[in-house]
Amino acid sequence: MRGMSPTPLDALTTPAALVDLDRVEANLRRVADYTRQHQLHWRPHTKTHKTAELTRLQLASGAVGATVATVREAEVMATVADDVLLAYPPVGSARLSRLMALPSRTRLTVALDSTEALEGLGRAAREAGRTVGVLVELDLGMRRVGVQTPADAVALARAVADTKSVAYRGVIFYPGHVRAPVEQQDAALADQRARLGAVLDALSAEGLRPEVVSGGSTPMLWRSHEVPGLTEIRPGINVLNDRNTASLGACAWSDCAFSVLATVVSTAVPGQVVLDAGSKALAKEEGLAPSGGYGALLDRPELVVRSVSEEHGLLDVSSTSWRPRVGERVRVVPNHVCAAVNLHERLHVLRKDTVTETWEVAARGW
Amino acid sequence: MRGMSPTPLDALTTPAALVDLDRVEANLRRVADYTRQHQLHWRPHTKTHKTAELTRLQLASGAVGATVATVREAEVMATVADDVLLAYPPVGSARLSRLMALPSRTRLTVALDSTEALEGLGRAAREAGRTVGVLVELDLGMRRVGVQTPADAVALARAVADTKSVAYRGVIFYPGHVRAPVEQQDAALADQRARLGAVLDALSAEGLRPEVVSGGSTPMLWRSHEVPGLTEIRPGINVLNDRNTASLGACAWSDCAFSVLATVVSTAVPGQVVLDAGSKALAKEEGLAPSGGYGALLDRPELVVRSVSEEHGLLDVSSTSWRPRVGERVRVVPNHVCAAVNLHERLHVLRKDTVTETWEVAARGW
Repeated sequence: MRGMSPTPLDALTTPAALVDLDRVEANLRRVADYTRQHQLHWRPHTKTHKTAELTRLQLASGAVGATVATVREAEVMATVADDVLLAYPPVGSARLSRLMALPSRTRLTVALDSTEALEGLGRAAREAGRTVGVLVELDLGMRRVGVQTPADAVALARAVADTKSVAYRGVIFYPGHVRAPVEQQDAALADQRARLGAVLDALSAEGLRPEVVSGGSTPMLWRSHEVPGLTEIRPGINVLNDRNTASLGACAWSDCAFSVLATVVSTAVPGQVVLDAGSKALAKEEGLAPSGGYGALLDRPELVVRSVSEEHGLLDVSSTSWRPRVGERVRVVPNHVCAAVNLHERLHVLRKDTVTETWEVAARGW
Repeated sequence: MRGMSPTPLDALTTPAALVDLDRVEANLRRVADYTRQHQLHWRPHTKTHKTAELTRLQLASGAVGATVATVREAEVMATVADDVLLAYPPVGSARLSRLMALPSRTRLTVALDSTEALEGLGRAAREAGRTVGVLVELDLGMRRVGVQTPADAVALARAVADTKSVAYRGVIFYPGHVRAPVEQQDAALADQRARLGAVLDALSAEGLRPEVVSGGSTPMLWRSHEVPGLTEIRPGINVLNDRNTASLGACAWSDCAFSVLATVVSTAVPGQVVLDAGSKALAKEEGLAPSGGYGALLDRPELVVRSVSEEHGLLDVSSTSWRPRVGERVRVVPNHVCAAVNLHERLHVLRKDTVTETWEVAARGW
């Protein structure tokens, strides 16, 4: 959905989700340059923004395809991307039948870590008459999903290679636990390299050398080239960034392209300013910044949304003499952009301070 | 939106939001009986479910009208309720113009705590040619919104009474901070009684005796009659209930009418079961239960979703020998139902284990 004519910010009902397109474009250029320089495929995780429009911009900037976590995301992104990776176990008949109904032009790959998931997928693919690529999911320390040992990886890769209607394409892992501040990343990287190396050696020794080794997340994005064997990265947050990413040092505050426009609705409690952006607009996600809270003002990052209820955000103004009045508007950068975007029906896209487009967050839900 | 024919649970894509209609009806009967017995008006907060259908059931059970927190909720609930209370400051021109565009049959009342909000509302109501009721918002200890002293309440009530196109109807407060376990509620109630009594005395002395004294929330619901002067209560959660409400002792576990149907998608990490219900399906809301986590299984409440990422919920099965397999389904009761419902497009309504209706969560967003 695109707006017909430019809209001034003042005309929006608050809270409203804003995307600064100049900053998005700078973020896209930076990751495109980095991946080109290091000969890595860039397959952004689109769960962050859930819009077809931003996926289209990512592809135009050099992304090789879209990563998704849900069938709904797959359905929406398949309208603009011909190469889709479901980085999620394809378990359950409803999930499988909708995956198989994706356009035949869609080159579909899925991640899985069990023979149960593999058998269900193989059966569904056979019945649908399509071939689905498979990446064996590895647990490299996140302890969420993924096979545990090199031997398990070999066994599952062998089973994939032996299953009709699926194609063994390689391995995948999510280093989401590796989000130490930049100065503490060396040890985490060394551990990732060692674990991944052992799996790659075992697979190669068995004639199962992976064509695809898919990893990479936003916090460690700029060090992806230090992981030998990696062929592609799947950063999600990076295109919009957020307060936690800035707190980790993985982006500058001025790289934050997403904010929530909010109105001051009450100043009745002394020392406190109440915004109309609460947990239903910002998401209640823990802050990695030492100052805590659930977000900070885009133009005054030292001012923190200290607590949230559903439709209220309590801005702590105890450190400043600045006192916004009832009716004034501010922009809040949330802690975790993926969770915040998911709460909004649409993103209002800005050039400078004018809304030039509106993107539907079309891939919400499942 | 209502489904055409009964659907078996198995046909749903997970995660899916489920509502047990037998339990809803029992919850409705209980609060209807309580409020009738104590001659309190029951004006349920519809932010919990955000559906026109459940508001219609509440009205049919004896509710006097709907409480809402957002303009979108007002617009949706006004299709089924002729009496709507916006328990939120009506600040900002976009918010005001949409409020004034509500059907002329809608008896609209709003809460506010500032002269800025009052002036904006008065101007908008005058221009729209309608009369809007006003409740003066009191802070009785929540420290979120609300005037601070009896003198401030009198001054704002006077200003309301003197403003054209608005009608002074009384006072409102939200005792959301009062959610002590039942055995610790006496002190909290005594404090609420004392603060409210002082305001009511001051208003009466100035000829501003409120017709409406609106309070009440789910945690203290069944003690509302112990607050002298209260005329109406606005519980929201009570119609569906959740894990936190059960933890507080304000409902039984078997009163929980909302759950999220989830599929086991991975058991690769030893001692752990991964569900496809994460923070985007359950919400990342703190648990009041000593066992922590983000939800518990409806049929095995001792089993807790220990941690969540966006599309993963990690079920802790360390206390049990029960081991669900990949592909099995479970139902999770989340900590905070209002936050969880807000993540779903629709609620699948069950009689026993069959989906008989589907309700659109139409009032999401703003």
